[in-house]
Amino acid sequence: MEKKNEAITSRDVDFAKWYTDVCRKADLMDYYSVKGFIDYLPYSYAIWEEIQNYMNRRFKENGAENVYVPMVIPASLFNKEKEHVEGFAPECLVATIGGGETLSDPLIIRPTSEVVFSELFKKRVTSYRDLPIRYNQWCSVVRWEKTTRPFLRGAEFLWQEGHCLFETEEEARKNTIDMLHVYNDCGRDLLAIPFIVGRKTESEKFAGAKETYTIEALMHDGKALQSGTSHYLGQGFAKSSGVQFLGRQSVLETPYQTSWGVSTRLLGAIIMVHGDDNGLVLPPYVAPIQVVIVPVRMQTPGVLEACHKLFEEIKALGIRVKLDDDDNRTPGWKFAQYEMKGVPLRIEIGPGDLEKGEAILTKRVNSEKTTVKLDTLASLLPQILKDIHETMYQKALENLNAHITDVSSLEEMNDVLNTKGGFVRMAYDGSADSEAEIKSKTNGATARCLYQRLPEDTSLRCPVSGKQAKVIAYFARAY
Amino acid sequence: MEKKNEAITSRDVDFAKWYTDVCRKADLMDYYSVKGFIDYLPYSYAIWEEIQNYMNRRFKENGAENVYVPMVIPASLFNKEKEHVEGFAPECLVATIGGGETLSDPLIIRPTSEVVFSELFKKRVTSYRDLPIRYNQWCSVVRWEKTTRPFLRGAEFLWQEGHCLFETEEEARKNTIDMLHVYNDCGRDLLAIPFIVGRKTESEKFAGAKETYTIEALMHDGKALQSGTSHYLGQGFAKSSGVQFLGRQSVLETPYQTSWGVSTRLLGAIIMVHGDDNGLVLPPYVAPIQVVIVPVRMQTPGVLEACHKLFEEIKALGIRVKLDDDDNRTPGWKFAQYEMKGVPLRIEIGPGDLEKGEAILTKRVNSEKTTVKLDTLASLLPQILKDIHETMYQKALENLNAHITDVSSLEEMNDVLNTKGGFVRMAYDGSADSEAEIKSKTNGATARCLYQRLPEDTSLRCPVSGKQAKVIAYFARAY
Repeated sequence: MEKKNEAITSRDVDFAKWYTDVCRKADLMDYYSVKGFIDYLPYSYAIWEEIQNYMNRRFKENGAENVYVPMVIPASLFNKEKEHVEGFAPECLVATIGGGETLSDPLIIRPTSEVVFSELFKKRVTSYRDLPIRYNQWCSVVRWEKTTRPFLRGAEFLWQEGHCLFETEEEARKNTIDMLHVYNDCGRDLLAIPFIVGRKTESEKFAGAKETYTIEALMHDGKALQSGTSHYLGQGFAKSSGVQFLGRQSVLETPYQTSWGVSTRLLGAIIMVHGDDNGLVLPPYVAPIQVVIVPVRMQTPGVLEACHKLFEEIKALGIRVKLDDDDNRTPGWKFAQYEMKGVPLRIEIGPGDLEKGEAILTKRVNSEKTTVKLDTLASLLPQILKDIHETMYQKALENLNAHITDVSSLEEMNDVLNTKGGFVRMAYDGSADSEAEIKSKTNGATARCLYQRLPEDTSLRCPVSGKQAKVIAYFARAY
Repeated sequence: MEKKNEAITSRDVDFAKWYTDVCRKADLMDYYSVKGFIDYLPYSYAIWEEIQNYMNRRFKENGAENVYVPMVIPASLFNKEKEHVEGFAPECLVATIGGGETLSDPLIIRPTSEVVFSELFKKRVTSYRDLPIRYNQWCSVVRWEKTTRPFLRGAEFLWQEGHCLFETEEEARKNTIDMLHVYNDCGRDLLAIPFIVGRKTESEKFAGAKETYTIEALMHDGKALQSGTSHYLGQGFAKSSGVQFLGRQSVLETPYQTSWGVSTRLLGAIIMVHGDDNGLVLPPYVAPIQVVIVPVRMQTPGVLEACHKLFEEIKALGIRVKLDDDDNRTPGWKFAQYEMKGVPLRIEIGPGDLEKGEAILTKRVNSEKTTVKLDTLASLLPQILKDIHETMYQKALENLNAHITDVSSLEEMNDVLNTKGGFVRMAYDGSADSEAEIKSKTNGATARCLYQRLPEDTSLRCPVSGKQAKVIAYFARAY
């Protein structure tokens, strides 16, 4: 029965093993019999629901409305947008039989829904008065990936995809950036994760987009994780689907489109940014259990009563609190268990504490212990949870900032990535060829996003092509 | 531009056409290019989200936790439970290609997830201490139906499916009934829809279940709509999947399983129970817009200001209110438009009303008009919305009760179903053969659920077989 309380692999011994240990032992997921598919257990799904709550509020403020569109895309429809289909076709799951009969037009299980929304827009838009349209959908998508890892890369994953249509390019570009900011805010306000925010290079952008913007996070092992993207799609999908509207000058015009999404990858980011050798460390505002109360020597009269009283006080504040009064487990087992599950704050109450009218509080993030009077404890919790969030964000931000290194050659890039890891900033000519060469010579480092465009008279040279450098980009090895 | 304001087909002229007219003109859905798949537009999805909010609260009170499990079921796994596969195989959508290669074990897009959850249970359960498990999932499922209709029967539809596992038969049976009550409560408290509640006959139960319980609603055209089901599955799925646990006596035991679900069919029920010849009539607690304010002669100084002030007061109460100050539309057009969309309460404010410090309120359900002082208006709304809900529920209940008829022969049954429609109660021998004969001789009437079991010494005879009758059941023509 003590199985879950076993130690997990240390992060610095085998990070990949540590990751899957945490996923399993914190009861986040279970493997399914088909490779790349997982069961999202209550503990991870509840975190996802908190992310949904935050996003739904922010989307609504931005004028987006939730909808649901079909999960299948006829092959004939999917093939309309050329760059898009080239990007996604290799990883499609395709249904060919329906009701026992072979389908004349096979159905692709959606890997993303740009073409489905474009078809919908065609029906919803006739005049400029019908614009803007801002739709969002929560669903799962399927991508037949070869290498899969829970939450990070799956054959099926949960996400939201926003799809918007505007009268003007300016509005569409603004929406692309606005939603990028929503994602960045989610990191700061909810997940306690700082991101590097920027535009993808030409070779890294979304298949079919004019421009892709990204939020990139730093994992404990020094690798980057693309955590959300916002695309300015221009008029490409609208033109392929024939979406037009009668403009203000009574002339037919083509609208401008955006799409933006975050997925359950964010759960992987939470695990790998905050976790430690004792397991998960959850940021308080997404934690399914924000505070756990563990009675010590609970047979002693008064202990359980005090715990129950405190539990009710905390619950009344709207804080997600659990009282673990299971008498089959020792307090020590429980401490380890809630550490593994990353509960932000633990409260212990034993007979000695009770006599002094006190309880012991332990913060998961830094094991900091404080003794607090029972009669004021509950009222202090909102601020304590806020402090924990702030501590976690600052810790992650310092780690991120300490892992951004400027380099000017591939040797230097390799040196940094092989030792401290993280992001390196390097000037180069901005070409796809150079990016490919960098990737092949650095064991897979890719341009994560652009840092800055260089002035035309820069004296900086691309260390790969020898040509004049055009941009500085963030590079990293990434998930 | 006045297109949406056209009249719709009358319910009594062509009910099917009226239904699709309402679906389209109230902006609930749009058709997709693949038959049976639809786009759920913001106005219907928002109703679904209100249903989700209600259900999530009730599920949580019942100890259920939300999860997400894979949408694909390997054919080899699907085939394990014999009755289940026979029931669902004919309507499966099957994926045979992944990443460009033929799959050795084809993947069925879930029509329902009993077998997926059974596989998960096998991993989660080793001891009686791991029980009960109560999982729920919100997702879409795919059933390759030949005849499809928006919200009522689709190739893909949104639903929730609860899957629970218990140590004892008693607990499982209790859960089956508890969840049935949750569904019935949802009708009474949220949708203003009364249901006939009961157990399905052997031939109508879920493929693989021991017992199926149902909630059945009466549509305006006299047909029944199965609106939710709760299944006691016994040990069948657990045995097929090999789910076992070490019991209290240290002996391996097989657990007892339940499943229960409601779907976006409930949207169809709302439309067909409450709607009228002017369009949708929404019960206030699910209406995306509960109150609409329409200014009349809004160029007159003071009118718009008064509307805005009222809007803010109502919004502050947490009521979903819209102020339509579009000056491209006449008040008359707006009245018709919000009638079509079924907004429960309309508030008009014009210069004359404003002079008297009043507004005119019109209830969608019965066109009842009242004049209310502006300074107390907002505070009266919670009670007014409650009254509207109650009026709608009572109206539907009276209609349901007026359409339950006791009959004792197939001639009588046909007479009733061909004239007033609704439910008929008839004693019969309870056999599948008799049900089949009833169906073929009554233009499709099916046993909706059992009403009562007859005493062993009953003198009632089955009008079909001539044998002694065993039960009285509700029959109806159904969607």
